[in-house]
Amino acid sequence: MTKEEIFSYNKHIPTPPETPYRFGVTGLNHGHIWGMCSGLLNAGAKMTHIYEPDEKLLADFLKKYPSVTVCESLDELLAVPELELIATAAIPGDRAGIEIAAMRAGKDVFADKAPLITLEQLAEVKAVSKETGKRLFVCYSEFVMNEAALFAKQVIERGIIGKVAHIDIFAPHRLNAPSRPEWFFDRERTSGILTDIGSHQFQQFLEYAGTNSAKVTSARVANYFNKQYPGLDDFGDATLTADNGITGYVRIDWMSPSGIQTWGDGRVIILGEKGYIELRKNCNIGSPEKVTNTVFVCTDDGVFTESVTGKVGIPFFTNLIKDSRCGTEDSMSVEQAYNAIELAITAQNIGLANK
Amino acid sequence: MTKEEIFSYNKHIPTPPETPYRFGVTGLNHGHIWGMCSGLLNAGAKMTHIYEPDEKLLADFLKKYPSVTVCESLDELLAVPELELIATAAIPGDRAGIEIAAMRAGKDVFADKAPLITLEQLAEVKAVSKETGKRLFVCYSEFVMNEAALFAKQVIERGIIGKVAHIDIFAPHRLNAPSRPEWFFDRERTSGILTDIGSHQFQQFLEYAGTNSAKVTSARVANYFNKQYPGLDDFGDATLTADNGITGYVRIDWMSPSGIQTWGDGRVIILGEKGYIELRKNCNIGSPEKVTNTVFVCTDDGVFTESVTGKVGIPFFTNLIKDSRCGTEDSMSVEQAYNAIELAITAQNIGLANK
Repeated sequence: MTKEEIFSYNKHIPTPPETPYRFGVTGLNHGHIWGMCSGLLNAGAKMTHIYEPDEKLLADFLKKYPSVTVCESLDELLAVPELELIATAAIPGDRAGIEIAAMRAGKDVFADKAPLITLEQLAEVKAVSKETGKRLFVCYSEFVMNEAALFAKQVIERGIIGKVAHIDIFAPHRLNAPSRPEWFFDRERTSGILTDIGSHQFQQFLEYAGTNSAKVTSARVANYFNKQYPGLDDFGDATLTADNGITGYVRIDWMSPSGIQTWGDGRVIILGEKGYIELRKNCNIGSPEKVTNTVFVCTDDGVFTESVTGKVGIPFFTNLIKDSRCGTEDSMSVEQAYNAIELAITAQNIGLANK
Repeated sequence: MTKEEIFSYNKHIPTPPETPYRFGVTGLNHGHIWGMCSGLLNAGAKMTHIYEPDEKLLADFLKKYPSVTVCESLDELLAVPELELIATAAIPGDRAGIEIAAMRAGKDVFADKAPLITLEQLAEVKAVSKETGKRLFVCYSEFVMNEAALFAKQVIERGIIGKVAHIDIFAPHRLNAPSRPEWFFDRERTSGILTDIGSHQFQQFLEYAGTNSAKVTSARVANYFNKQYPGLDDFGDATLTADNGITGYVRIDWMSPSGIQTWGDGRVIILGEKGYIELRKNCNIGSPEKVTNTVFVCTDDGVFTESVTGKVGIPFFTNLIKDSRCGTEDSMSVEQAYNAIELAITAQNIGLANK
C-alpha cells in the first residue's frame, strides 16, 4: 500500500438536525463541559437553559454564552419541556444522580466521562434507562473527539494491519495540583485514576478490539509523588483480555512534565497481523514543529506517517443527536458506553485492593 | 537543564587486560554468539578454541575465525587449561548443562540469554557456581550492548528525571519463520517468549528500577498468528512490581513488519518524578533518515533528543574480563543476572497457566 492509499480521508462534515434539537446544561465542574457544549452546538443543537449552583462557574459560562436562560434549580431545568438532552460535567460522584433525575424527567443525558463512579450507580442508571426508555451518552473524548483515535479505527476496519492482536494505551496527564478544585483529591467523589481518566482508555480498548466484552486481568494504582493528597492516585495501570482473545494494556498517570507543552504525551499502539499503528495524539516529542494527531502506520510496505488534524472530522455529535432521536447507536453503542465504565471501576477496585 | 548538559558523554574505551585472557566457544546455535565473541575480542580477550558439533555452523564460524583450534568434544574444550571462560549460545535448553560442565572444569561461563529455561536448572547452576567458585555471565544484549539503554541508566543516575516510578519495555521482533531452525519452535528447548526474549526485558526492569528484587504481578502468552507452530508464543507480556514500589510492564512479540527495516521497534519509557525518558533503540519511525539509539528526555525544561550511537561505548566486555578475574561485579551483579531469568521463567509459567 502507498501512503496516499493509507492516508485517504472522507472528512465528516456536521449536518444540523432537520428540526431544532435543544439541550440544557448542569454541572460545569469539569472543563470538559466546554468541548461537550461546543461539539453539540457545532452539530446544530441549540443550548437554551442552564442550572449551575456555583456562581463563579456560572458567571464564566455566561460570559461566553450570555443568551442561555438560567434556571434556579435542577428541577426547574429538568421541567423545561422542549429540552431533549441534559449535558453535565458535574463532580463525577454526582453525575449518576443527575443522569437518573434527567431520565426520569424524560430527557436523554450526555455526561462527561466518568459518567458514574460505582458499580451500584451503574446498576441504577441502567435500570432507570430501561424503565424510562431514555439514554446515557458519555463523552469519552479521547476517542470520540480525537481525530487520530478515530482514524486508527478506520485503518483497522480497512484491514491495513490485518487482525488485531494487542493494544497499548498510554494516557499521561499534567497534574498542576494548585489549579485543581478540592473534590479532585477526594476519592469519595472521583473514585480514582482508573475510573476517572481510565474510563477513556477502557473505551478505546473495546473500540479497537471490536467487542464490548473484556475482562480486567490485573490492575494497580499508586500515589508516588503526591502523598500530601492521600485521596489521589498519580498512577494506575491494567491489563485486559477481550472475549475474542485480543489483549490490552492501559497506563494512566499524573506525571507529565511541562516541557512537552501539552497536557500529556498520549499514545496508542495497536499490533496486528500485518503491521502496527502508533498514535501520538497531543505532541510528537522531538519534532521541531508543534504537531498533533500524528498517525504512524507500519506494514511490510514501509512506515507511513501523517498528522490527521483537520482531516477526519468529528462525527460524534451529529450522530449523538440522531441516536437520541432515532434510537440508533451510531455515536457509540449503549453497551460499550456502559462496559467501558464497568471495566474502569472494576480495575480501580482491583487496584485499590492490591495497594 | 540544557540539551548539552543532558547529552554529555564520557565514552567508554575498551582497555585490554594486562595479561592474556583466553576464552573458548561452544554452541553456535543462536546468532548472538557473533556479537558475544566480537565484544570479547574488542575488549582484548583471545579466542583460542571451539567445539561445535554442527558442521555447517562450525564451517561458517571458521570462515571468519580460521585460526581458532577445533576441539572434538566438549570435554576436550573444557580440558584446555589456559581457557578462563567458555562462551556459549547453544540451544537455550542445553545451556545450563554446558554452564555446569564448564564451571566444574574450572571455567567461568558467558551464556547468551536466556542462560537456562527452568527453575530447576537455575537452582542447579547456582549450586554449582557456589560449589566451584565459578561464575555465570549472561549476555542480556538489549541492555549491555545497547548504547541507548546504557545512556538511560546514566540519565536516571544523574537525577535528571528524579525518582523513577514506572518502566515500560517493548520488544517487538521480526519472526521470519522460514529462517528459523527447528528447535526454535520447540517449547521443550526454548521455554517460550517470556523466558527467551523476555529475560532481556526483565533484566532491564531490574536495572532501571535499581533493585534486584521484584515480583511478577501478571503475565500472558499467546499464539495469535502462527498456529502452525504450536510450540511458539508470538506474544507475551507481564506486569512487575519491584520491592521499592517501582512498577513495570514488558511486552514482547514476534510481529514486526518488514517495512520498519530493522528486527524490531524496541522502546523503553521510564517515568519519573521530574520527567520521562523514551528510547527508540533500533529505529525512529517516521524519521526520514535511518537512525538508531534515539534518546528522548522530557522534563519541565523541554524535550531534548539525540541519537547516542557511537557516543556511549560498551563497557560490558572490559568489565566482564575484570569481574572474571577479580570477583568484582562491574559488568552486572550476579544476583541481577540470576533474578532476571528467574522472573522471566516465573512469568512464562504464569502465562502458560493462564493460556
